[in-house]
Amino acid sequence: MLKKAPERENRRMVDTGGVDALISHASPWLSLRHKTGIVISSRVRLARNVRGHFFPGWAGEAERVRICQEIKEACYSLERLPQPLYFDMGTLDHVDKEVLKERRLISNELAQRGTGSAVMASADERIAIMINEEDHLRLQAILPGMNLAEAWTLIDGIDSEMESYLEYEFSQKLGYVTACPSNLGTALRASVMLHLPGLKLADEVGPVINGLERIGFAVRGVEGEGTEAHGNLFQVSNQMSLGETEADIIERLVQVVSEIERHEENARLRLLESRRAFLLDQIGRALGILLYARVLASREALDLLSGVRLGIELGLVRNVDVGTVNELLLLTQPGHLQRLSGQKLSAEERDELRAQVIGQRLKGAGLKGA
Amino acid sequence: MLKKAPERENRRMVDTGGVDALISHASPWLSLRHKTGIVISSRVRLARNVRGHFFPGWAGEAERVRICQEIKEACYSLERLPQPLYFDMGTLDHVDKEVLKERRLISNELAQRGTGSAVMASADERIAIMINEEDHLRLQAILPGMNLAEAWTLIDGIDSEMESYLEYEFSQKLGYVTACPSNLGTALRASVMLHLPGLKLADEVGPVINGLERIGFAVRGVEGEGTEAHGNLFQVSNQMSLGETEADIIERLVQVVSEIERHEENARLRLLESRRAFLLDQIGRALGILLYARVLASREALDLLSGVRLGIELGLVRNVDVGTVNELLLLTQPGHLQRLSGQKLSAEERDELRAQVIGQRLKGAGLKGA
Repeated sequence: MLKKAPERENRRMVDTGGVDALISHASPWLSLRHKTGIVISSRVRLARNVRGHFFPGWAGEAERVRICQEIKEACYSLERLPQPLYFDMGTLDHVDKEVLKERRLISNELAQRGTGSAVMASADERIAIMINEEDHLRLQAILPGMNLAEAWTLIDGIDSEMESYLEYEFSQKLGYVTACPSNLGTALRASVMLHLPGLKLADEVGPVINGLERIGFAVRGVEGEGTEAHGNLFQVSNQMSLGETEADIIERLVQVVSEIERHEENARLRLLESRRAFLLDQIGRALGILLYARVLASREALDLLSGVRLGIELGLVRNVDVGTVNELLLLTQPGHLQRLSGQKLSAEERDELRAQVIGQRLKGAGLKGA
Repeated sequence: MLKKAPERENRRMVDTGGVDALISHASPWLSLRHKTGIVISSRVRLARNVRGHFFPGWAGEAERVRICQEIKEACYSLERLPQPLYFDMGTLDHVDKEVLKERRLISNELAQRGTGSAVMASADERIAIMINEEDHLRLQAILPGMNLAEAWTLIDGIDSEMESYLEYEFSQKLGYVTACPSNLGTALRASVMLHLPGLKLADEVGPVINGLERIGFAVRGVEGEGTEAHGNLFQVSNQMSLGETEADIIERLVQVVSEIERHEENARLRLLESRRAFLLDQIGRALGILLYARVLASREALDLLSGVRLGIELGLVRNVDVGTVNELLLLTQPGHLQRLSGQKLSAEERDELRAQVIGQRLKGAGLKGA
């Protein structure tokens, strides 16, 4: 239910010309300038539903289109979201949806939807608002590095402003009403993407994950729910959104992440001290294969780039910075590769192009002292 | 039984100062200048026993020492073996024996023996005469590339000259009498070392080996009897030495090797034509790992050097020649590495030094057009 007519209807609706505008720069959560360390990015998302409509999964197409239009108008009214990008799931092709997924602007689930589902994003991609995913609204803020508190502030601001245009379904007892009961309460999920190559090399990832799960955190691979951890990238998020305030959820995750960082740093130090040749070898091989391979599958590239990132962070690699690794992490995913080449590519063609792009960007890199 | 006193007793017996003299140069069968292709080396060896003595396995130490002395004196008399190198198995340490094995001057079996066993070799290492291995004499000629006929001529000349000093055990019916019945007859074993990466990548090595075994040839890995083929290096030799003349044995092997060469060349052409990216990737990865690894086990190095050799021979690799690969093949084996470093090294230390030596020698190498 739309609370009031958008105030700035004359505001120009930006035609983004597909996803091309996104391709030319790296996603801000992988900011080239930002010195990300163990924590690659921080994300907070809120689930919201608009009063007076069926959940997207129950609504027919006509109603979904109405809901989408209503939310879209509200979004264009937000002071905190000037000149947003808009992508309609009904008109985007498969490759463009892949690009948005790879930039973490949309979920797998939204990508599978069509007419009546969409995403609005800030030009800097820090804010993304998915419309008619599982809920009417999924509001997300994503920032580079360890910035959970800032991400929360950012999305809380958007959410508050949005509430002046839309009336949310809210129950005094259950909090925000969501399509899936697991999101009831604050309907908040806070997550961080962690790079844990030290723990992996020291064979200590398992115990850390088990410990996290015991105290109520979910740990997933970088590609989301149910995926393996490639590239030693792990997403840690709160399991429960009920019974705690937003601030408590964020605070607990901040604490736990600082613990994991300490473990990872210790593992790296131990490797440097007592298994230096092994460590250098792992990093060197990753670099050597990335520089000389002619065929690189996506997952292998992730794993090898993890090795190079570790090498850079430990000061063992020269002539390449974390920014380049971040850029490659994004650009060498299937959607981006196809967008870059301007054509649909087979898996084999992608693997060849990936090797070529990586080889070019890493040219001149080497182990220090070699 | 010594036929006659050596004629040139005043000939200077060269003290070789251990194996140090060998280390500084590559073995001639891996000659740096020789453009070896699919056939790396050709070898012919003859087994001989001296009349009037027990076979080495039955003789006591005192008798073995007498036999050894007798043969040594004969060797020093050979016109065709001027200033031979002499290595006594009773005084060589483990590392030196490894070096001699790696240079293919002695067998595993001779290396395990002590006092009373020895080897004499020409300064250019093309000729090696093992004394009191399984037989009193094992005469070998080894040459780079496809040179079986020349190797046979060389060792036949040594053998004829030797017969003027020593009386061999010979039976009109059985030919040369040998400790193991499998060597009876000509007591000749001719072998070639083949590099078959094309057949391996095309998954066709198995059928070729089976075919060879069916027509009476033995196929082994490079490290000799009962070993796996590392580095795509295979030794092909005649199984039987009885019932054929020396010339026939050599001729049959020459023919069969030319067949295998054709198969290998075809496999390489097919790879170049229809799986070029895969081929380049295999070669590139080999090069990348060799350049950037900090720990390289012996067998992995063999396998990777095989990839680089293939790349050079197909004109796909720049700034490195086959000679360098040959040199590395020899120098990065455990014995040579320890000799080079001047100390006994653990397996871990060897793997690190191996990676270092290879990285230095291959520096600047790359895929063409990259």
